[in-house]
Amino acid sequence: MPDLVRWFDDFSVGETFTTRGVTVSEAAILGFALQYDPQRFHLDVEAARESPYGGLIASGFHTMVLAFRMFTHLGLMDHCSIGSPGMDEIRWLAPVRPGDTLHVVVEVLESRVSRSKPDRGIVLLDYAVRNQRDETVMTFKINALALRNPDAAE
Amino acid sequence: MPDLVRWFDDFSVGETFTTRGVTVSEAAILGFALQYDPQRFHLDVEAARESPYGGLIASGFHTMVLAFRMFTHLGLMDHCSIGSPGMDEIRWLAPVRPGDTLHVVVEVLESRVSRSKPDRGIVLLDYAVRNQRDETVMTFKINALALRNPDAAE
Repeated sequence: MPDLVRWFDDFSVGETFTTRGVTVSEAAILGFALQYDPQRFHLDVEAARESPYGGLIASGFHTMVLAFRMFTHLGLMDHCSIGSPGMDEIRWLAPVRPGDTLHVVVEVLESRVSRSKPDRGIVLLDYAVRNQRDETVMTFKINALALRNPDAAE
Repeated sequence: MPDLVRWFDDFSVGETFTTRGVTVSEAAILGFALQYDPQRFHLDVEAARESPYGGLIASGFHTMVLAFRMFTHLGLMDHCSIGSPGMDEIRWLAPVRPGDTLHVVVEVLESRVSRSKPDRGIVLLDYAVRNQRDETVMTFKINALALRNPDAAE
């Protein structure tokens, strides 16, 4: 297990982290959809059955925020994270259905110190969200802004 | 105002849509953060004051799903949307703070019929989320999968 207190300097390219799992209930899918993504195949079991998906599926935004939550829950960036300038290449690859259990494998793709603000850096993280059959249901890349170790920064 | 029932064929490149607004309360920011993005500058007013943001800011995921919800609420894709294969170029440009009022301007960037499944097409939508001072706080592009008008498709 990695140390709990990490700074920008403690993330190495190629390093991977695996989160715990979360089971996505029908109630959670319906609740998220009602608030943020009320499309019929996320919100209405009966209408979803008639959709191309053949049944209820989770909003892709729901899967995304659950994945982010699971990585945050590891606590690795609790001390160093100061937000993010953006994300890229969000891909929804397979449906998430009620009862599916998801976990996330996160890999450090890049790491670079900021030129303008040398007390921080950007860690490019590659998220792969997998289900209980180890199918990858979603991938995305996020640029995480992280403070450097005050003792390490010049 | 656009027609309420739209199909893939009814979206034209260059067309723009403007949503109604939503005021983002402190309670909403805290609630979203607790569930999906429990970083201290989204969840803890006191800690946020000491952060580089100088106060509480909304999770970028929160802004994203509110923007999606506002566009969905226009009802333009109620009949034709069958999901999305992905998003690109998510950029968080300025903080969203308690009391800010957001709206979204969505532009159709591209539109193409599917080669493999001629009953549908992809509409590339460019979202710009703006606040009450008309500052753009966030942008992203989403590929929306939409069914063609059954009467128009060959």
